[in-house]
Amino acid sequence: MGEQTGDHNPIQAAAQQTAPPGAAAAGPAAAAPVEELNEDGTPLTEKQKKKRAEKAEKQRIKEEKAAKIAAEKAAKENEVDFAAQNYGQLPLNQSQERHGIEFTPLGAISAERDGERVFVQARLQLCRSTSAKLAFLVLRNRFDCVQAVLAETPDQVSRKMVKWTASLPVETLLNLEASISKTAKPIESSVISVKDAELKIHKIHSLGAVVPTADQKFSVQDATRSEAEIEASQSTEQPMPSIGLDTRLDNRVLDLRTTTNQAIFRLTHGVCRLFREFLDTKDFIEIHSPKLQGAATESGASVFKVSYFKGQAFLAQSPQLAKQMAIAADFGRVYEIGPVFRAEDSNTPRHMTEFTGLDLEMAFSEHYHEVLDLMAELFTFIFRELPKRYRKEIDTVKRQYPTPEFLVPAQPVRLNWKEGIKMLREAGSQIGELEDMDTETERLLGKLVREKYNTDFFMLDKFPLDIRPFYTMPDPTDSNYSNSYDFFMRGQEILSGAQRVHDPDLLAKRMEKAGIPVSAMQGYFDAFRLGAPPHAGGGIGLERVVMLYLGLRNIRLTSLFPRDPKRLEP
Amino acid sequence: MGEQTGDHNPIQAAAQQTAPPGAAAAGPAAAAPVEELNEDGTPLTEKQKKKRAEKAEKQRIKEEKAAKIAAEKAAKENEVDFAAQNYGQLPLNQSQERHGIEFTPLGAISAERDGERVFVQARLQLCRSTSAKLAFLVLRNRFDCVQAVLAETPDQVSRKMVKWTASLPVETLLNLEASISKTAKPIESSVISVKDAELKIHKIHSLGAVVPTADQKFSVQDATRSEAEIEASQSTEQPMPSIGLDTRLDNRVLDLRTTTNQAIFRLTHGVCRLFREFLDTKDFIEIHSPKLQGAATESGASVFKVSYFKGQAFLAQSPQLAKQMAIAADFGRVYEIGPVFRAEDSNTPRHMTEFTGLDLEMAFSEHYHEVLDLMAELFTFIFRELPKRYRKEIDTVKRQYPTPEFLVPAQPVRLNWKEGIKMLREAGSQIGELEDMDTETERLLGKLVREKYNTDFFMLDKFPLDIRPFYTMPDPTDSNYSNSYDFFMRGQEILSGAQRVHDPDLLAKRMEKAGIPVSAMQGYFDAFRLGAPPHAGGGIGLERVVMLYLGLRNIRLTSLFPRDPKRLEP
Repeated sequence: MGEQTGDHNPIQAAAQQTAPPGAAAAGPAAAAPVEELNEDGTPLTEKQKKKRAEKAEKQRIKEEKAAKIAAEKAAKENEVDFAAQNYGQLPLNQSQERHGIEFTPLGAISAERDGERVFVQARLQLCRSTSAKLAFLVLRNRFDCVQAVLAETPDQVSRKMVKWTASLPVETLLNLEASISKTAKPIESSVISVKDAELKIHKIHSLGAVVPTADQKFSVQDATRSEAEIEASQSTEQPMPSIGLDTRLDNRVLDLRTTTNQAIFRLTHGVCRLFREFLDTKDFIEIHSPKLQGAATESGASVFKVSYFKGQAFLAQSPQLAKQMAIAADFGRVYEIGPVFRAEDSNTPRHMTEFTGLDLEMAFSEHYHEVLDLMAELFTFIFRELPKRYRKEIDTVKRQYPTPEFLVPAQPVRLNWKEGIKMLREAGSQIGELEDMDTETERLLGKLVREKYNTDFFMLDKFPLDIRPFYTMPDPTDSNYSNSYDFFMRGQEILSGAQRVHDPDLLAKRMEKAGIPVSAMQGYFDAFRLGAPPHAGGGIGLERVVMLYLGLRNIRLTSLFPRDPKRLEP
Repeated sequence: MGEQTGDHNPIQAAAQQTAPPGAAAAGPAAAAPVEELNEDGTPLTEKQKKKRAEKAEKQRIKEEKAAKIAAEKAAKENEVDFAAQNYGQLPLNQSQERHGIEFTPLGAISAERDGERVFVQARLQLCRSTSAKLAFLVLRNRFDCVQAVLAETPDQVSRKMVKWTASLPVETLLNLEASISKTAKPIESSVISVKDAELKIHKIHSLGAVVPTADQKFSVQDATRSEAEIEASQSTEQPMPSIGLDTRLDNRVLDLRTTTNQAIFRLTHGVCRLFREFLDTKDFIEIHSPKLQGAATESGASVFKVSYFKGQAFLAQSPQLAKQMAIAADFGRVYEIGPVFRAEDSNTPRHMTEFTGLDLEMAFSEHYHEVLDLMAELFTFIFRELPKRYRKEIDTVKRQYPTPEFLVPAQPVRLNWKEGIKMLREAGSQIGELEDMDTETERLLGKLVREKYNTDFFMLDKFPLDIRPFYTMPDPTDSNYSNSYDFFMRGQEILSGAQRVHDPDLLAKRMEKAGIPVSAMQGYFDAFRLGAPPHAGGGIGLERVVMLYLGLRNIRLTSLFPRDPKRLEP
């Protein structure tokens, strides 16, 4: 059986179905007047009277007949529906009962389980009733969609049950009892993910009323379409709507229900898991550093100010200071996954005011390349494991947002800044030796590196000192450069890091040069006066890693509830 | 060899050693005047002249002798120190070289490796030089302390090397080459954790200068003493100092270096790891919800206000709303580990303005006890695994803060609110049926439950509705009560949770009763109008769990850099 859902606008169809029944029905005919007269007030002739009487008799017969039909219809409606127990809205769940029911996830349904009876909890993504006896449903949970059929039967499914089901708004949450049924041939549909089986519904109950389909801002099915599908539909009779980013984000709970988003946030969890899994085997410990700071530290301009009792506080722009202090406190190797706050008024597809930082810091024995090597190994591990463990998630996202598979070589590429500049200049860039790269130059470098090394991931080492923060360790031989690096994915920066200055005298000089009085960061500074081992680390933007791995075009797509200068809700 | 460190004040000793050499030395004698006169201006008699000449001659001989001694001393000092390459301060590490040196952790040193030569990086916790030829050191890293000996040898260790070492301030970071040496009998010391071996030092270099011992606010060794040790020392000649909490927190980097704190924060990491490890196997996904909120939601009074560009924002008091919205968005089972902010002006040992929340939320099939059971299993898992995986950490903390082992039964105890009230009243409490418990009453209940069930962990279910937040689901049969619960450790609450109201009509009523306009939480409210499954969850205070598991008396001891109404630094 083919897809029942592809080629018409389900929202409009559902809206028509749910228009109040009888809204257009006429009232009963008016009663006959006591005495009849012509329009000019003269009495009727006998002929006229006879004609009128005949007309009235006809009307009476007609009304009698209508009343009889209505009575029959009413009687039929009042008769006991043999299927009444098999459908309807469940009472509010206040944990009245516990029977031990276990729901089968839609993703576990397959032809191999043909004939098995299962309990399912799922959303109604779409319902189309082709007759009074039959309805086809698209059911969804997590990132699976399954086709289901509700067909009239003599003893279990009544026409009323079909009608009730067909009247449900999309997004209604359903509890179903159904049988798995192998399909004769694979279901051809870009929406249905279970291709070799469908569900035959025996019982169907809603968990509660949801807003009517017409009042929902968009349908989840529409929100899951690829740009190619939408574009191709524009020349047809039923062009598909394109749902804009702001509409999605304004209605984020609805938007998050798409199979694509379910997959994106499982992959995000995957990145965090792999990050921790790797570092836990390397003897790191996780820390939780305070986000409330007594002083605006790293950069006063882009820091959020907080009213703190009778004084004020500032939101940490990164755990930079705290993780370095943890190193000075002998923790050796630390990481943190937590929110970082940036009060930059940047309304670009790459910036948010709050995002998730994956931060790590590590004391090393001799050379900061020990840390660089470990982080290269970390990313290689993440990139190798993601497609192994999250293949279905990646493919689900690609269905909506097609993108070339992320390229990673067995040995990660580490480029020196000078090599990078050379490549750029050979490609026609005018960038200066010690000049910071803008976004466009970074993209160009990413393209050049991809062409040369066949990789979407590389490291750029030895940045010019002057374009890095004060806590960056200068290069030992050429003080124009520094022991610092960025990591790139698809030509965009996802990690920034360096060997840090661990010597208090050099730190004081660097702070002075940066115009930061030591007194403004006394606790941080004092940590180094008590002796700190040489150390290096980096900060990674979680959302950027996910965005670039999946080749998405806006960072907001990888944030659960994104925050930017114009958005604080929902 | 016994402990070399126990019975004198190492700080004072080190301070005396590091007083600037020659600070008290006199300058050279003044030159003789050209013509001598008596004090009244008359010339000297011959007798007087002779006497003066004799005196001058004596002075000359004395000075010649002194000059000779000084010259000899200088010659000796200038002579080549055969050990010069074996000690001293290393140049600033700017990653000049990489040889592949691997340091041996102190915890890996044992009698079994007798005779092995190792590289070690460690802090100097204490140094006592008993003669010009010999110095005993206590070295520390992570939560291990090892005894080390530096003794003069004909070809490797010079007296100058011993002297230089003895002059180092405590907390100096050292790179050492040393041989492991089995001790004749176990080292008797509460400080030294490696009992069966010590290090014989061949080379010793400092990684940089640290502030003189006398300028350090306390010694790490003193900060690691138990109250019992300090108390017992008060009647001796060398009473040990007790380091107050504020002094510790003002110098938190130094304080965190104690073996006790190293262990506390590894255990904290352990709690988070076990929390995730369990939930990951139960199909949860980790989310990162925004801390910046557009409205002051759960409770306007105790929320921090943030300047947000031209408007304002508020810091989330918990991920409560976001995690419920994630459930409405079909994520099914979610958890989050992140900061939560409470603007409560409470200066108690149990409150902080920022702490780490372990939050989870879960859609259930029929009954919220599915969630309660899962969380009970979660805690049972954590409590069972902690002593298995973190025995050394627990024992390290107990050395300084002795406390009875945390009691957990095989089957966790779940008490009904009414049972709890009955037990309290039988024990003499006057608490009303529907009255909230204060801290003292909770402690009493914890004591009663411990006596009856032999457990330090229990769950209290079915709280009165009126003392719970608006989003709490009422009990289905008695609307005085609710489907909500707290978990307790050693008589203190560590988790609060409930089945939530997932029905928009009931939610609107509950919000109205609580005086919260729906418009103030529109995004949250709308999530339920789009249909949400029945769900329940809980929020756990990470620092409280660690504090109570270890039996510590102040929550600040389990926060890396604690924040309270009076503390925003370091």
